[in-house]
Amino acid sequence: MSSPTSTGGLRYRDAGVDIDAADEALERARSAIRSTFNDRVLADVGSFGGLFRADGLGREPILVGTTDGVGTKTRVAAAVQRFDTVGRCLVQHCVNDALVQGARPLFFLDYVGVGTLHPERVAALIGGVAAGCKDHGTVLLGGETAEMPGVYSGDDFDLVGTLVGVVEREHLLDGTRVRSGDALIGIRSEGLHTNGYSLARRIVEERMGIAWTDPFPGDPLNRDAAAVMLQNHRCYLPVVDPWLKRTELHAMAHITGAGVPGNLPRVLNGMGARVSRAAVPAQNVFSQLVKAGGVERDEAWSAFNMGVGLILVVDPNAADEIQTELRARGEESFLMGKVAEDVTEVAWLD
Amino acid sequence: MSSPTSTGGLRYRDAGVDIDAADEALERARSAIRSTFNDRVLADVGSFGGLFRADGLGREPILVGTTDGVGTKTRVAAAVQRFDTVGRCLVQHCVNDALVQGARPLFFLDYVGVGTLHPERVAALIGGVAAGCKDHGTVLLGGETAEMPGVYSGDDFDLVGTLVGVVEREHLLDGTRVRSGDALIGIRSEGLHTNGYSLARRIVEERMGIAWTDPFPGDPLNRDAAAVMLQNHRCYLPVVDPWLKRTELHAMAHITGAGVPGNLPRVLNGMGARVSRAAVPAQNVFSQLVKAGGVERDEAWSAFNMGVGLILVVDPNAADEIQTELRARGEESFLMGKVAEDVTEVAWLD
Repeated sequence: MSSPTSTGGLRYRDAGVDIDAADEALERARSAIRSTFNDRVLADVGSFGGLFRADGLGREPILVGTTDGVGTKTRVAAAVQRFDTVGRCLVQHCVNDALVQGARPLFFLDYVGVGTLHPERVAALIGGVAAGCKDHGTVLLGGETAEMPGVYSGDDFDLVGTLVGVVEREHLLDGTRVRSGDALIGIRSEGLHTNGYSLARRIVEERMGIAWTDPFPGDPLNRDAAAVMLQNHRCYLPVVDPWLKRTELHAMAHITGAGVPGNLPRVLNGMGARVSRAAVPAQNVFSQLVKAGGVERDEAWSAFNMGVGLILVVDPNAADEIQTELRARGEESFLMGKVAEDVTEVAWLD
Repeated sequence: MSSPTSTGGLRYRDAGVDIDAADEALERARSAIRSTFNDRVLADVGSFGGLFRADGLGREPILVGTTDGVGTKTRVAAAVQRFDTVGRCLVQHCVNDALVQGARPLFFLDYVGVGTLHPERVAALIGGVAAGCKDHGTVLLGGETAEMPGVYSGDDFDLVGTLVGVVEREHLLDGTRVRSGDALIGIRSEGLHTNGYSLARRIVEERMGIAWTDPFPGDPLNRDAAAVMLQNHRCYLPVVDPWLKRTELHAMAHITGAGVPGNLPRVLNGMGARVSRAAVPAQNVFSQLVKAGGVERDEAWSAFNMGVGLILVVDPNAADEIQTELRARGEESFLMGKVAEDVTEVAWLD
């Protein structure tokens, strides 16, 4: 972009905004976006609003809406110029947040905020969003890319998404099924989800003192630090899909910002839980971060998911059957505690 | 927040993230959020996902989803530490984007991204969102506040929203009613909406050389520059509500980023339009920005709305009646051109 002389006429581009760049990004991403469409979609890419037929969604359909971002995971992506993965993280994060109320995804809308709009980067970001949507039967119904010079500097960006899902009222998980004594079954996470990145980046950069392209200490897959930190936010929809209409499933908690103690009590209908941390299989990424950062145990469990991706709150008589079924589908789960009515928060057993 | 010693254990707060601050902001905003709830809402503030009953939305209901931000209008708000107005701008922007397809709003979700989370500022931002939602019968169903040190610096922030509305299929405005020769009725905007701020801020700061608290040149209300620039993004739902089910209304365009030429052709079903700029009443804010910035005429019409907030595309035989009815409700409108099948874009008449 050219600089104006002090007396010349200003153009929009002189203020750092290139209207055409957003169109170019959208053009590059168009086929990926269209690949997520199904027969409920009525409008094409680029309308003022995406159109989605809502007839026949169920007898008593309840829409579940959830918005989130990917936090400063964007800074790791920017540091290694890898823009094609965080979009999937965003979608899968939101799918999980709808899932824990029993809902399956219908459609998604994304927002990309950047300082300078590079069409190929934005197209890669949207491509990641579209890939995540496609894998989970979710329409990418709309989105916005905003070029905001000064708000975002350098390669920094923000990535925000909104998911709308649906659940039939009788299958809604709203906490009312939860009973004292219910079993807590943990499903393993893979890496940090999209939370705890400000602390984790500081530990990697300052305490480990390694570059993003250096090997991450002890990683069983021999990945570099960026790959470990950009690990996809796991989507738990395929894991629990067969159980969504079963009455033995009483609630679910998605372990994101604020960890197990910040998320589990949100779904327990006013009760608390006794939880064993020793029951959760250790994951190298957390062990290394905690060690290098000298992070105290309680602090670590509030900053990171520590290996717990999702917690199923289930009828204790069905816990064995659920774990057996999960194992048959290749999913190792762990019994990590019980709902308790004599506490209101998470009480650690160890 | 305290600084760790180089060998001490790191806490999450040391990385610039205060988990409790987001909770405090939500607590402060809770009653404003709840005030937007209606009998379709099933969950309280703070759930993983907001719950909205979707039974009985119509015979053939179509959901309209739209996402947007308020651009660098956030920088004006940050400059004068006034955080209670841009939330309303965001909601009204999104309501308009759904409106132009014939839809009325159902629910909204917001996202606030900040570098350092000041609970009172975030509560003011969310309060503005809630006020806009309440005025237009829109439930504030959910939201997220993300503290992202490094991505946002100083007082900068981003504010993003997603609106879901609904329209009965027979009343959907999807361009198919548009005919060559249709009349274009302009509805006046009030100020810049939420677009063109990077250019406008540069003109105010560098060419006018005035402070945000200085009087804006020629403003008929004697406001300071910040007040002129923070003018609410006008909501056109009350203006056109009585016409939403009338078949004489063929389409509508909301004039946002890229101005009349960037937005009007999006709704004309492949046709273009001949448009008179002289027919649009001049507004002081645009005249002053164009003059001080030396902005060329075509450039100005692509960067700013130039006084046109919404364009109604109507049956030419109904144009008089519509304008008379608008006038009776205190709304001055202007005939600004016609749909033309021999052009594909906007062709200026003057």
